[in-house]
Formats: sequence, C-alpha cells, structure tokens
Amino acid sequence: MKKIAVLTSGGDAPGMNAAIRAVVRKARYHGVEVVGVYHGYEGLYNENYKPLDIGSVGDIIQRGGTILYSARFPEFKEGDYQEQAIERMKKAGIEGLVVIGGDGSYRGAMQLTEKGFPCVGIPGTIDNDVPGTEYTIGFDTALNTVVDSIDKIRDTATSHENTFVIEVMGRDAGDIALWAGLAGGAESILIPEEKFEIEDIVTRLERGASRGKRHSIIIVAEGVMKGHKLAKQLEERTGVKIRTSVLGHIQRGGSPSARDRVLAGLFGARAVELLIEGKGGRAVGIKNHNVVDYDFKVAFEQKHQADLSLYTLSKELSI
Amino acid sequence: MKKIAVLTSGGDAPGMNAAIRAVVRKARYHGVEVVGVYHGYEGLYNENYKPLDIGSVGDIIQRGGTILYSARFPEFKEGDYQEQAIERMKKAGIEGLVVIGGDGSYRGAMQLTEKGFPCVGIPGTIDNDVPGTEYTIGFDTALNTVVDSIDKIRDTATSHENTFVIEVMGRDAGDIALWAGLAGGAESILIPEEKFEIEDIVTRLERGASRGKRHSIIIVAEGVMKGHKLAKQLEERTGVKIRTSVLGHIQRGGSPSARDRVLAGLFGARAVELLIEGKGGRAVGIKNHNVVDYDFKVAFEQKHQADLSLYTLSKELSI
Amino acid sequence: MKKIAVLTSGGDAPGMNAAIRAVVRKARYHGVEVVGVYHGYEGLYNENYKPLDIGSVGDIIQRGGTILYSARFPEFKEGDYQEQAIERMKKAGIEGLVVIGGDGSYRGAMQLTEKGFPCVGIPGTIDNDVPGTEYTIGFDTALNTVVDSIDKIRDTATSHENTFVIEVMGRDAGDIALWAGLAGGAESILIPEEKFEIEDIVTRLERGASRGKRHSIIIVAEGVMKGHKLAKQLEERTGVKIRTSVLGHIQRGGSPSARDRVLAGLFGARAVELLIEGKGGRAVGIKNHNVVDYDFKVAFEQKHQADLSLYTLSKELSI
Amino acid sequence: MKKIAVLTSGGDAPGMNAAIRAVVRKARYHGVEVVGVYHGYEGLYNENYKPLDIGSVGDIIQRGGTILYSARFPEFKEGDYQEQAIERMKKAGIEGLVVIGGDGSYRGAMQLTEKGFPCVGIPGTIDNDVPGTEYTIGFDTALNTVVDSIDKIRDTATSHENTFVIEVMGRDAGDIALWAGLAGGAESILIPEEKFEIEDIVTRLERGASRGKRHSIIIVAEGVMKGHKLAKQLEERTGVKIRTSVLGHIQRGGSPSARDRVLAGLFGARAVELLIEGKGGRAVGIKNHNVVDYDFKVAFEQKHQADLSLYTLSKELSI
Repeated sequence: MKKIAVLTSGGDAPGMNAAIRAVVRKARYHGVEVVGVYHGYEGLYNENYKPLDIGSVGDIIQRGGTILYSARFPEFKEGDYQEQAIERMKKAGIEGLVVIGGDGSYRGAMQLTEKGFPCVGIPGTIDNDVPGTEYTIGFDTALNTVVDSIDKIRDTATSHENTFVIEVMGRDAGDIALWAGLAGGAESILIPEEKFEIEDIVTRLERGASRGKRHSIIIVAEGVMKGHKLAKQLEERTGVKIRTSVLGHIQRGGSPSARDRVLAGLFGARAVELLIEGKGGRAVGIKNHNVVDYDFKVAFEQKHQADLSLYTLSKELSI
Repeated sequence: MKKIAVLTSGGDAPGMNAAIRAVVRKARYHGVEVVGVYHGYEGLYNENYKPLDIGSVGDIIQRGGTILYSARFPEFKEGDYQEQAIERMKKAGIEGLVVIGGDGSYRGAMQLTEKGFPCVGIPGTIDNDVPGTEYTIGFDTALNTVVDSIDKIRDTATSHENTFVIEVMGRDAGDIALWAGLAGGAESILIPEEKFEIEDIVTRLERGASRGKRHSIIIVAEGVMKGHKLAKQLEERTGVKIRTSVLGHIQRGGSPSARDRVLAGLFGARAVELLIEGKGGRAVGIKNHNVVDYDFKVAFEQKHQADLSLYTLSKELSI
Repeated sequence: MKKIAVLTSGGDAPGMNAAIRAVVRKARYHGVEVVGVYHGYEGLYNENYKPLDIGSVGDIIQRGGTILYSARFPEFKEGDYQEQAIERMKKAGIEGLVVIGGDGSYRGAMQLTEKGFPCVGIPGTIDNDVPGTEYTIGFDTALNTVVDSIDKIRDTATSHENTFVIEVMGRDAGDIALWAGLAGGAESILIPEEKFEIEDIVTRLERGASRGKRHSIIIVAEGVMKGHKLAKQLEERTGVKIRTSVLGHIQRGGSPSARDRVLAGLFGARAVELLIEGKGGRAVGIKNHNVVDYDFKVAFEQKHQADLSLYTLSKELSI
Repeated sequence: MKKIAVLTSGGDAPGMNAAIRAVVRKARYHGVEVVGVYHGYEGLYNENYKPLDIGSVGDIIQRGGTILYSARFPEFKEGDYQEQAIERMKKAGIEGLVVIGGDGSYRGAMQLTEKGFPCVGIPGTIDNDVPGTEYTIGFDTALNTVVDSIDKIRDTATSHENTFVIEVMGRDAGDIALWAGLAGGAESILIPEEKFEIEDIVTRLERGASRGKRHSIIIVAEGVMKGHKLAKQLEERTGVKIRTSVLGHIQRGGSPSARDRVLAGLFGARAVELLIEGKGGRAVGIKNHNVVDYDFKVAFEQKHQADLSLYTLSKELSI
C-alpha cells in the first residue's frame, strides 16, 4: 500500500477533522502517502483530489466540521460511477480508501470493495446510530452541546416556573435525547424506540406541581414528534403555557470534545492499519472498551440499539 | 434608610443574580438590611418577603436566571394594588425598593415612587433596549451565546456549503442581531430598525457564489420576520435550499459574562446609594463609560437607539 | 433498608453532585430515606447529618464541587472512631452508607462494612485511577478542561512559534496526561507509567523544526517531574526558550460533562440497589460498557492501569 | 492609496485575526489591495509579504492567536532597518501600514511615519494598558477566561473550605485582576496601582471565618508579587494552608468574545479609513463609547489608568 485516499460523507460531525488528521499521520508514520478527496463521493467521481502531508492536517484537531467538505451524490449508487471512480483512483496511484461518515456512507465503500477496491469505514455522525459500534465520532460533542443548552434553558424555566419542551436531533435513534435528557436532569424523555402516553407526561407534570415544583424540562427526539406539536398537546391537557425550543443545527457544530478526538485518533489509526494489512470491506468501531473492526454487512444487517437501561434510569431519577 | 427590598421582574437575564448580590452586599456595607421579594410585583403585593444577608447571596454571582424568580402581574397597574403593596412594605419596615428588569418593569417602580415610596431601577434584560443606558445587564452574555451558536452553525454551513438563516431575539430592538451578526461574520443582518430588500440579500448570496463562496449566514431579528418565512422567500428566489435555525430560549440563560457581572456590580451599588441618598424615582445606567442615573420618565419618553453604525460596518465587512 | 446516608470524601470532582442527586432520587424512588453527611468522615463521626429529599437535590446536577463538602480526617483510621460513627448512625436509624470518592476513601467504607455496617463506594476522582473501573466520575470533565487549555495555549504557541511544557494533574496515574495529550495533539506526552528519555523529546523538537514547524506542546503529568524543571532541562539542551504552564486547580472544577453526569446517574443508582439488596462492601464501576460492582478488596489489591495503547498511538500521530 | 500592509506585533491577543479580517475587508470594500506581513517587524524588514484577498481572511474571525504570526525584532529600533523596510514596501507598491499590537508596537509605526511612511495603530493586547483607549482587543476575552477559571477554582474552594491565591497577568496594569476579581466575586484583589497591607487581607480572611465562611479567593496581578510568595506570607500569618494557582498562558488564547470581535471590526475599519484619508501617525481607540483616533504620542506621553472605582467597589461588595 503506497497511497490511500480519505473522504468525509453525509452530515458533518465534530471530530471528523481529528479523524482525517489521524488517518494522514498514521499513514505517513508507515510511509504511506495520503490524498484528500473533497466533497465526498462526488469529489471521488470527479477526481477532486489533493495530497495531504503532515503539515496540512496541523491545527485541525480542534475544529468542527470537515476540511474535506461533504456532499450528497445519489448518482454514486450506480455501478458506472463506481467503476469510473475506481479507474480514476487507480490512475492516480491510490490503492485504498477511508470513508468517514454514517452507515449510509458505508454503502458506497462496500460496493467499491466488492468491485475490488479496498475501502474502510469510520463511523462519524452525531446520531450514534451506526450498528456494530457503541459510539460514533461526534456523539459526545453533540451531547455536551445539548446538555449545555438544557442548562441554559433551565435557568429560565426555574426563574419563571415554566415548562419547556426541547426538541433534539434523532430521527430513528434516541441516543442524543436519552443521554442528554439524563445528563440534563429532564423530567420526561421521548425517544423513537419507546412508545409514550401523553397522559404519563401530564401525570409527571402534575406530580411535580403537587410537591411545589412548577418548572419542568421535556426532551423529545425529532423522530417522535415536532416539539411545537407536543407542547400544544400538553397545553390542551394541562391548561398551562408550555414553551418550546428546537435546538436544531447547533447540535452538529463546535470544537470536538476530548473523547471524540481520542475516538477519532483510535479509529483513524485502525482504519489505516486495516488497509495496510489488505483488509478492505470493514468498518471500525468500539466495543467493550476495545477498538474493533467488522464487515460492512454488519452495519446493514444489524440494527443500532440505544441503551434503554438509561430510559428506565431517567424515569426513576426524575420522580 | 434602615431596610430596603429588591425584586426581579420581566424576562430573566444573566447577571440578575450578580445584581441582587451587589444590592445586598452594598446595603449591608452601609448597615442597611435587605429583604428579597419573590416572584416580582406579585410577591410584592403578597408579602412574599425573605431577609437576605451576606451569606444568602454567596455563590450566586456566576448563576444565570434569578434566585428571586420573576412573574407577570398585570393587576399591579391598578392603584389599589400599589397602595396595598406600599402599606405592607411599610409595615415590614421597608423604606425603599430596587427593581431589576426591563423598562416595562420600571412603570410599577415609577408609580410607587409617585405614591411616595422611593424606588430605583436597574436595567436587566438581554435585549439591550432600555432608553437612557448604553448597556443592560444580560446583553453581553446573550451576545456571546448567539455568537457561539453562529460559530457552531458555520462549521456545518462551511462543510456542506449551505446557506443558513438564524433567527435571534429582538422584537423591537436589533441590538442582538446587529452585534452578534457582526461578531459572527454574518453575510447579511436584518433588524427591525432598518428596511430591507430581499433582492439585496439575494444579490449578496449571488456575489458570494460568483467568487466561489457557497455558504452564507443570514441573521434575522425575530421582530423582522420569522426565520422560516425568510428562508422560504429566499429559496423561491434563488432556487437553492436554505436551512433555518431558531435560537430561541437558550439566549436567555447561562452563566453571566465577566462584563455583565461587573455591570451588575456597578448598577447594584449605585442603586443602593440612590436610595440611601433619598433619590427615588430614578433608573441607573451606563453612559459614556460612566455609571449614571436618570428619571424614570426618560425610559418612557425616549426611545432606545441601536448603534446603526454597526449596520453600515457589517455591510462593508461582509462584501 | 429504610434510611441510608451519603457522603463525599477526598478531592472533589465534577459530577459528585450528580451522583448525590442520583443516590437521593433512586432511594426515594424505592421509598428509602436519605441523610446527607457533611464534611466526609469527619461529619460522619460528628453526626453532621441533614435529611435530603427530592427537592434538596434539585438544580445541582450541573454544578461542580460537592454540596456535601469534603474534608480530610485521618483519625477515622482508628477503630474507636469507626465504632462511634456506626453507633451514631444506628441511633439515627441509618442502615447503609454510600461513599463517593477515590480509592483512598474506600478504606473507611470497607472497614465500616467489616464492622457490620454495610457501605458501598462510588468512584469520584478526576484522576481515573480507581482499580476495578474503567472510568471514574470527574475524569471526562477534567479531560475537557485540560484540552480546552491546550487549545488556548496552542493559539499562542502557533502565533509566536514557541514550545510549551504543560503540567497536568496525575501523581501516579497518567490518564489525564495521556488522553488530554492525544486529544490536544501534543507532540510529546510524559506519564509516570513510562520511562522517558529527554533526548527523545529533543529529537522530536528538532525533527519538527526541520520540517518547518517551530511550535510544540509537551504534556507532563505532575508525577513525572515539575513542568518548570522539564522546561529548564529542555532549554539547556536545545538552547531555545521553552515556556511552561501549570494548569493546577482549574482541573478539578467546572460543570460536569454529559458523560460524567450519566456515569454519576448509573453509579448512584447501582449503589442504592446494592444497599437495598443487602450487598455492602462493594464498589461500583464500569467495565466493558456495563455497570459492575466488586469487592472493595479489588480496589486495594489491584493496580489501576492506564491504557498504554494511547501512548503508542500518540507517538505515531505526532510525528 | 492603492495598496496597504498589515502586521501583528508583540504578545498575541484574541481578536487580532478579527482585526486583520476587518482591515482586509474594509480595504477591499474601498478597492484598496492588502498585503499581509508575517512575523511582525522582522517580516517587514525581510519582505515576508503575502497578498490577502477577501477569501484569505474567511473563517478566521473566531480564531485565537494571529494568522500573521508575531515576533520580537529589537533591531527595528535602528534607523537603518526602518529605512530599508520603507524602501522595500515602496518597491512593492505598499503605501500605508496597519500595526496591530500593544503600545510598544506603536513605536516602530510612529518612527516609520516620521520618516514619511504613513502608519496606523490598532490596540491589540489582553492587558488593556494602551493609553488613549478605554479598551484594547483581547481584554474582554482574557477577562472571561480568568473569570471562568475563578468559577472552577471556587468549586473546589467551596467544597474543601480552602483559601486560594490566583495569580493573573498584569505586570504594570491591574485591569485583568480588577475586573476579573470583581466579576469572580474575589474576597481580595491586589493590583500594581494600589499599595496593599498583608494585614488587611488577613483581617478579611478572619472576618469571613468569623461569620462561618471558610473559603476565600484572593486575586493577585503578577506585577504585585508571585502568587506562591503571597500564599506563603499568608500561611505564616494565619497558620492556615493556602493554595495557589498561576493561570499563566491560557489567558492569551481562545476564541475571541463577541465584544472583542466587534471592537476589532470597528478598529480595523477606522484604521483603513485613516490611511485612505492620508492620516498616518495615529492610533485608533474607543473613548466614551465612540471610536476615536489620536496621535501616537498620546500613547507614549500619557499613562494608562485602570478604573480604580472598581477597586473600591470590590472592597465594598466582598465584605
């Protein structure tokens, strides 16, 4: 393996730059050259390459977003595009590819590998929803951003004795809602994985009120229901004004947390090792406190499971 | 003056606790007792008092919100309520009152003073819209919260080459939008004080695109238009997907900035001095780098003016 | 189990309050009363108790330090003191005790258990050095504080092309230095667990300089050598001015990170469960992504092992 | 004026990049070209120039440090070096120079102006000690960093009931100590501008202890005395263990605060205007809430005055 490429794909996540840095540094440590591919698979198809040396990834470990940019490129599903991309990489002397992104981004990598071009995947998404790994790069940072926002809103909720619905990211996975709700001391948490009864939230609000607590924080993952809609339903039932905050895009940005940077370092290094060892078609992850790698198929055949023991715990702690 | 009271009113703002602390400490320094009134004017009417000694305001300088809570109490406009409140304060030996809040909160304080009970106002609101003072407590903190959010969103905007509309607080005053937009490097800023042409924003977006810049941040004060509505109008004109983020309630919370804490200290101390000197009916403020005080009437007769030179500057710097 | 007590002991750590909250809430969930013991074992001996209900741990999940205070009390090693403490707890109807602190704090808890009073330990220390658990409460927050400081110092290091030695906490354990150094992109990391050659650092500095990089960050755990001393040795060898920063006590404080709060919730809940199940003499921890509990003896007989694969990785990534 | 140059000099300060951006953008707005000079006056002498267009200052407004680097170059005091620098700038078509730094950096700019080459100064230093302006770029950010550190240390001080001495920057100017001490709720503040009696601090410590307060924060500017030395003196007098924290270099770094960025925008724009108007030999500043400019001589003939009313206030509020 003399030269590899690296790209970022899908929604950006804090720590992607730290992962790019790790890929470049680890590869250079082993004497392997690295090419950065700009704008994800679109750039791969269009040969939007640029060599990355040690200096070109200096001073990026702390930056949010991705210096390689990201883009959607649905055309890449088609075999023609993939074969062209492989041909062009080969022409440029590239022998392996690291793809940083969510499990959706792994599909192209798997198909390129099946067509004979070894690819490796690094899980980079704030949603923490890639099967086969306990954590993804960006989740811990997003979590801290959400918890910081809950802390801020709690200041107002307490001062005015208001109830707030806070809508957080998570279409299919409740990880952000669950962890942030638990860490933020939310009174109720709604996640896609668990059915909820609106009456249950109403009961909790009333129970709090009866012991003199007139403010409350309710976290809802966007996949469950719009925050504004939930607030309206609660207002109708309680007769009390409920405020809503939709955290939105701030959850994606910011300087990565210490843990996301360390994870990025571990994942980037293992990804390069896999390519050097000739093991394409695999994703890296963390499992039982150890860095692991597994066939891309696992990411498609298994389903991510949020840690539902946290759900039970949050109910017990928010009595 | 042997005993004074202090209350917070209107929307909470970071630094209100630092102001309460300053009122208590400064009063105690001069041997004056202090009573905290809970839940604003409602608590004033209902004698919701609690003595505050030096220790009871320890470890609150850094906390957002207000330990005295805040509440709406429209009934207080009526003379009867005001007279009752005065009678009750007198009965408790209270001889003066400090009101921390926006200019709306000053009205009750002015009327109590007119009825013979000396009150003093401290401007505490994130909106920075109290006439007669250049800055209000809470504005600087809110500004930094908004700028931090812009920085985070810019990570994503840059990585995906998207344009974002960010809606910030400010119904009538553009201060937050203006300062945060300038500090966040926004490409366009929309404030209630200035008419805007949607075509102008479109032109700026196109000019950016023509020099290869495909991401852009547009700040809009809530008083101008809903962020989602603006995004839709821009999408219709440019044909490009525009994302929206409504920062909402996170702007009110958080630990106060250094400057807001210092301002709170200066204002709290001057408010106590005024009461001791028998000068009721006045609001404190900062003007030309000096702490000043002025008749409540100024707050009602004058209109707050945002610094529109920043508007011109932002246009020049975001070419 | 009708009533339990909780205390914090040893150096304070961010997340201790979140753990206290979890203990109280979980106990109340099961109908168990909770008594807070102030000032650690000293307060235990002196019956410095105060009942903690659900409301009394409201709004503390986000606060650094410990609302129960901490203190040294070497006298508690003696049997007499322990027996007195047990007698007094029994008199107050207390049937079990949760101790939050480092492994040093576990000794008293083990001895009380051996004397017939069931105690459970929760690992709370920024050093991450409690045997039997992969993480302690406070480590993640301290890590982020250190990384934030490295980021700030790097701004100056880059601007002036200086080399900095940054001394971080860790007398016997290199965890903070290792993780923070890796996350901060440090060029060299010195930990108590690994011998170092000063010439190796010199070589790395020179290698960086030869490829045009004139700034560098060196992290040293306090247990290895004073930062100032290391800087002096490096200056003598390189002839270049080296700056030093001793991060010190800021590493202990601050609002706990999301992860530390979640860990505190998990640990607090398990600790209460153990007492309810009559399982005294055990510490809780996290192992292979699961909450575990183990005999106090493990904490004394085993030795904490920092993850030295991070050490190797940091050397490879900082070429 | 067709082309101007910009450099940063002296210690770096957060907001310098925002000022560079403002200079470039404002100049381009008026059709003036800009050249960045690397490594301060050394780079000026060595023609270390690089053209800066609008895009090259994109995404830097939020970054600490200076992208133009800074350096010491004592040789520049000599006339020969200055004349060479002028000649070289003229050869490159440069007609004016903006210098961003402390008042020490203004000397070269003044001398170049006296030799016929128009220069303008922008105050960029965390120390806030440039005569003729109320605020310098970087001060507000440093203040917030120090206050954040005090908040963290207070967590530990409160939990363990310890007294801490915190040493902050400020050799001759007490601004950082004064503002941060007031905002951090310090019990005592020591600044170079005011004599202090160690007995006074001891009295304050004892008075606090007598009302049950056993923790205390003492802020000392480095120009007064080393923190460790002060702690030792206090220990000898009180017999109580005093802890010390030297904040050091973290005070220089970090993303600039909103206010520092706005100030940088205002100053950068005015500096360019002055050059365009042919007004060399002047520094920009803020006075009475307005941007002003004044002859460099003011910076050398006047002396910066910290706002000592804050000193009195802090004494009153920390009773």
